[in-house]
Amino acid sequence: MTNVLSLDIGGTHFRSGLFDQKGLRLFTLEGNTLRSGGRDWMLKQIAEQCHTLLQKSESPVKACGVSFGGPVDFESQLVRSMHTPGWENFAMAQWMTETLGLPCRVDNDSNCGALGEYSFGAGRGIHTLVYITVSTGIGGGLILDGKVFRGKDSLAGEFGHMPMTDSHILCSCGAKGCLETFCSGPAIASRAQELAERRPEALGRMAELSSSPGSITANAVFQAAAEGDMAAIQIIDEAARWLARALLMIIRIVNPDKIVLGGGVTLAGDTFLNPLRRFLKEMGSPSIPYSTEVQLAELGQYSPLYGAAALACEFL
Amino acid sequence: MTNVLSLDIGGTHFRSGLFDQKGLRLFTLEGNTLRSGGRDWMLKQIAEQCHTLLQKSESPVKACGVSFGGPVDFESQLVRSMHTPGWENFAMAQWMTETLGLPCRVDNDSNCGALGEYSFGAGRGIHTLVYITVSTGIGGGLILDGKVFRGKDSLAGEFGHMPMTDSHILCSCGAKGCLETFCSGPAIASRAQELAERRPEALGRMAELSSSPGSITANAVFQAAAEGDMAAIQIIDEAARWLARALLMIIRIVNPDKIVLGGGVTLAGDTFLNPLRRFLKEMGSPSIPYSTEVQLAELGQYSPLYGAAALACEFL
Repeated sequence: MTNVLSLDIGGTHFRSGLFDQKGLRLFTLEGNTLRSGGRDWMLKQIAEQCHTLLQKSESPVKACGVSFGGPVDFESQLVRSMHTPGWENFAMAQWMTETLGLPCRVDNDSNCGALGEYSFGAGRGIHTLVYITVSTGIGGGLILDGKVFRGKDSLAGEFGHMPMTDSHILCSCGAKGCLETFCSGPAIASRAQELAERRPEALGRMAELSSSPGSITANAVFQAAAEGDMAAIQIIDEAARWLARALLMIIRIVNPDKIVLGGGVTLAGDTFLNPLRRFLKEMGSPSIPYSTEVQLAELGQYSPLYGAAALACEFL
Repeated sequence: MTNVLSLDIGGTHFRSGLFDQKGLRLFTLEGNTLRSGGRDWMLKQIAEQCHTLLQKSESPVKACGVSFGGPVDFESQLVRSMHTPGWENFAMAQWMTETLGLPCRVDNDSNCGALGEYSFGAGRGIHTLVYITVSTGIGGGLILDGKVFRGKDSLAGEFGHMPMTDSHILCSCGAKGCLETFCSGPAIASRAQELAERRPEALGRMAELSSSPGSITANAVFQAAAEGDMAAIQIIDEAARWLARALLMIIRIVNPDKIVLGGGVTLAGDTFLNPLRRFLKEMGSPSIPYSTEVQLAELGQYSPLYGAAALACEFL
């Protein structure tokens, strides 16, 4: 048996894992990103975690993979940037190889999430998979006939910036009406805030569930909806309806075997999935049936870590 | 040199071509589909055209390909149906082989259009291409890394039924708000009809250009728009804006090297393309630039015929 190392480097936390070559996760180490620490601090933590995992491994470790929470130039294996400073055009794979003496491959967290689910999660045994992560932002990746499909500018899977409709809401990307402005976590929280301003009396349960009544969180909205709060249910319904429209777009364009949903918003489970499935049915065409399955990620928040392990396994 | 035969069978017309193995079109024969003739009449015409072309060929003809204007089960090489009767589950490829003694492959006209442009038209030398035909209906095909991508239910490229928005307009598929209801030829004509009912005085030039003032055609709308008629320009602008939104969706999801536009509506040229390009720019995000090119089909109405020739060339 041979093992591999896997890293998931994000703007708020990072983790590392030791996997066997079949994708079994043997050990995991976690840490919170120290924003002020920048790149050098992070690299030090990573090196320490990796050395710990190498010591724990009972089989030889032959390769490593990295899921990076920002744009990656896959060809050159340079990372482009992250929310924390110092990562611009850093030769991540090369640094890993120099530090650990192992071959290394890096990809962004969206593609790694897709690859993780495809290799070791909800996508085992199928050919084409679309992975969407609905969280602070919305991103995703495509696996077509078993391979990550990147597109001309590595923009394939930029689901968060699908131009859903005319809207006054400005997206972080500079456009208006992006999917991300309708059903990301912050978008759901914003809808609750807007409601608080218009009809504060409707906010009741959502305000109680938030740490501060002046700032309703998406979690509070989901929790209130799960308890049957009508205003919260309406907010979740609206978000689910936009995502359903986007999923139908993907089905009409790519018609994948499966669409796998990951990210914090989908952790709400049925509170989000039930309306999503209802709207998928409502908006679909009765005369053009499709068999694309829509389901939750099996690996939860670990999809990218598993994907990085799959990248490493490509060296074996 | 070796030649191939190619057929394009549609609901309103059919054509056949003799091509050399590099995709040079040597001869073409055309005919109008006799709806009442059904399948047997059509097969007779096809056989006659093919024999004529075989006689004309100065090099041995080694294979043939068929573009079919209806659903095709590519695996079994059966055609499923067409607007004219008698085609249900017909073994088209087998019939061609028995009639002509040549190996034959069949695909639907959308995939053939994509393959034609990819092999011999606007897509030469690139890897990924999305082909959209905007005509009586809206359809299309995807070529990803050089191969037709069909999707799970052979629905990949069903662009006409992308659920664009909530709308009262019922699509032929049974859903509401499909792309086809906003920018197909009949949709453009419908918008002019609706205007005729609301504000008959605004219709002026469009009515003059139509054979009967009670039935404005899409062609009349395009012609009036080209002459500067404001009402017609607004109708075209609206159609172009919906198509621009759909193209941006495709770019965010697949990010192909090129999107190639075919079909009757695109024959309007700049009258349609100029607003389309303007809206693509307006709706795009300034911070997520893409280099996917949007251009007209190079082979015009012959894209599917060329694609059928490309199918035949796969046997060589």
